[in-house]
Amino acid sequence: MYAEILATGEEIRTGILIDSNSACIAQRLQDIGVEVQRHTAVGDDLEALAQVLGEIARRCDVAVVTGGLGPTADDLTAAAAARAAEARLICDPAALQSIEAFFVERNRPMNPFIRKQALLPEGSACLFNPVGTAPGFRLIIDRCRFFFLPGVPLVMRRMLEDHVIPQIISLQGNERRFYLSKTISVFGLTESVTGEQVADVSAVFPEIQLGLRARFPEIQVKLYASGVDEIHLREQLEAAGLWVTQRLGDKVFSDREEPMEEVVGSLLRNAKASVAVAESCTGGLIADLLTDVAGSSDYFLLSAVTYSNASKVSVLHVPETILKTFGAVHETTAKAMAEGARQLGGTTFGLATTGIAGPSGATPDKPVGTVCIGLATPRETTARRFHFNYQDRLMNKKMFAMTALDLLRRELVSVERGG
Amino acid sequence: MYAEILATGEEIRTGILIDSNSACIAQRLQDIGVEVQRHTAVGDDLEALAQVLGEIARRCDVAVVTGGLGPTADDLTAAAAARAAEARLICDPAALQSIEAFFVERNRPMNPFIRKQALLPEGSACLFNPVGTAPGFRLIIDRCRFFFLPGVPLVMRRMLEDHVIPQIISLQGNERRFYLSKTISVFGLTESVTGEQVADVSAVFPEIQLGLRARFPEIQVKLYASGVDEIHLREQLEAAGLWVTQRLGDKVFSDREEPMEEVVGSLLRNAKASVAVAESCTGGLIADLLTDVAGSSDYFLLSAVTYSNASKVSVLHVPETILKTFGAVHETTAKAMAEGARQLGGTTFGLATTGIAGPSGATPDKPVGTVCIGLATPRETTARRFHFNYQDRLMNKKMFAMTALDLLRRELVSVERGG
Repeated sequence: MYAEILATGEEIRTGILIDSNSACIAQRLQDIGVEVQRHTAVGDDLEALAQVLGEIARRCDVAVVTGGLGPTADDLTAAAAARAAEARLICDPAALQSIEAFFVERNRPMNPFIRKQALLPEGSACLFNPVGTAPGFRLIIDRCRFFFLPGVPLVMRRMLEDHVIPQIISLQGNERRFYLSKTISVFGLTESVTGEQVADVSAVFPEIQLGLRARFPEIQVKLYASGVDEIHLREQLEAAGLWVTQRLGDKVFSDREEPMEEVVGSLLRNAKASVAVAESCTGGLIADLLTDVAGSSDYFLLSAVTYSNASKVSVLHVPETILKTFGAVHETTAKAMAEGARQLGGTTFGLATTGIAGPSGATPDKPVGTVCIGLATPRETTARRFHFNYQDRLMNKKMFAMTALDLLRRELVSVERGG
Repeated sequence: MYAEILATGEEIRTGILIDSNSACIAQRLQDIGVEVQRHTAVGDDLEALAQVLGEIARRCDVAVVTGGLGPTADDLTAAAAARAAEARLICDPAALQSIEAFFVERNRPMNPFIRKQALLPEGSACLFNPVGTAPGFRLIIDRCRFFFLPGVPLVMRRMLEDHVIPQIISLQGNERRFYLSKTISVFGLTESVTGEQVADVSAVFPEIQLGLRARFPEIQVKLYASGVDEIHLREQLEAAGLWVTQRLGDKVFSDREEPMEEVVGSLLRNAKASVAVAESCTGGLIADLLTDVAGSSDYFLLSAVTYSNASKVSVLHVPETILKTFGAVHETTAKAMAEGARQLGGTTFGLATTGIAGPSGATPDKPVGTVCIGLATPRETTARRFHFNYQDRLMNKKMFAMTALDLLRRELVSVERGG
């Protein structure tokens, strides 16, 4: 099945907006065994739109088009499709009904020009829009089955799942191939080292293809399998996933695409433990990440973002002598901060960061990218110093925060194992 | 000048990677008056690549192609260009020299297969890569002048500025048109209200085109002007920008595309003032935003992320009677938190948030999306309650944090004006 994707809109053509819809559609089609061969994007120009629809109609079995279905004058996709199909635009009763229902349900008056959205090329079938007023439609032009969807990503994704994916699956009949994947999330190794460690996976599991993806600061090992026997493919993926996890050991923090803060949150919840954080150089990012997870108030009690030295003393009760003797960026200070946070929160764990995110604040022995991380547990308090070479404030903050969360994760995993 | 962009690579074709290069190139070409008419993306397939290059060669005056210039077997762009141009691949002496120089400078041995990158279609001119080993090249196929660049965004952008933009400008000769724009950043109005307020700008300034862009939670009013007289265009843009700013009043927080946290930071610095924050529902996000700005330690001293009630008492000294009487989410509590933060930090201002980001924690009179924001100044302490209807934890956190920063901004602006 030869498939293509077309994105429309002036904002995409001129580069004001990055088109994320096409990647989303390509991935979902790939999931059901349809390989997208080409992506195209054009602006809101009737001529250009009709032209490219005609080209796609001659090349493809299936195509998904996004954008240009709204009520305004620059929404031209239906008119362009009609021109490419040499069909008239007619008022589609099902489309009109769904638009009217939208306004009735919300008790809002319907603007007359909204009706324009019910004008579809003759021969097309309306695709119901459960979230907005612009219906999609399905239309065969030449040899190609087109699906036209709105461009708003949230609406597009919903209608892709509701209409396009099921209809394409039913078109595939018995020919359906499965394209499955598994993601192993890794922290603390570079992309190239990760690649070397797991390069053999396709030798051990000949049906598995390997892909690597850097999602700063984590590395994702992607395992792909395709074929007709879904159960067999899942087994192969599981086995290959285990093999990769054994290779990479404790650098693996998730085999379900969870972010680090969710993994740490689950471990804390399972251990019936809690954490308080003391942040200097991470500036609140650790707290922000932890509280992005719903229900985090069960285990996250507080973070003291003590950016100034004075606040390290007044809030965390770090002894002034420590700051005088060792400075703000030091293992001893990180330990005192972690203990201060643990005490202040009355929590199981205290986690602390102090370092230099840059661009200023560096000294010869403490260059930009230096961070000391303290961890206070019920048994002991430890601290480690790291240095990262990014020379970028936001990358440093992110790396410092992830490193701190990873240290807490390792501690929780070792506690869970009875270490 | 008819221009197109082609992105290549399996990760883009299959949707694993969202193509951001094409939007960046389209914007830069637009800046110098070249309108991109179409974007295309295909995978690493020699046949498909040569095919699409041939199509573009027949349609365009200028095209920029990204990706597929690396040393591995799936880097096929040079071979596809040679096929489309019906030319041989030959070793380009300039390309080889620049690759060898890269390794000599870094004192690293050169892998022999790296040499593949010096194989360019006969008739092309090498484009020097200052950051990596893959050189780009320039080649005329049919009637189209192609620029081939590496796909790594950082490298692509550098080579676009170094080679492509200057060469296209020189191609334009005296015909050069300027495409300028100005961005007014707005917070606290919906996109449609903003649009209504400024819709007349093109009536008052006929050379100005208006665009609106929602960058949650802010709205950007974009003003565009194009023509041959750069100075005149800049004057028109400035005047239209002022007109828009007067229309929207204090909802405008920047006319230079600065983020809110940078605007607030500059105002604090100018006022020689400092701030301490107390965060409940924003979970550290305010501190994280403020400390994203380099040099923020000059005015940001601390944030107490007091997620639990106990920590509101122990860290911020919020009286327990207030929590008992009014609950955690209340104006009175927000005021006590703001005063607690100001006291703890010894700062000019104290800013506090307490609310319900969801999905849980709601009560009948305090639904998800409720937030109380307290602001303690040298003169007084005030608090306001807001309710937002997003039903999404991360959107709520973002909106709460921006609303709090905006309240502080308004206070600083009124102080600056001697209010």
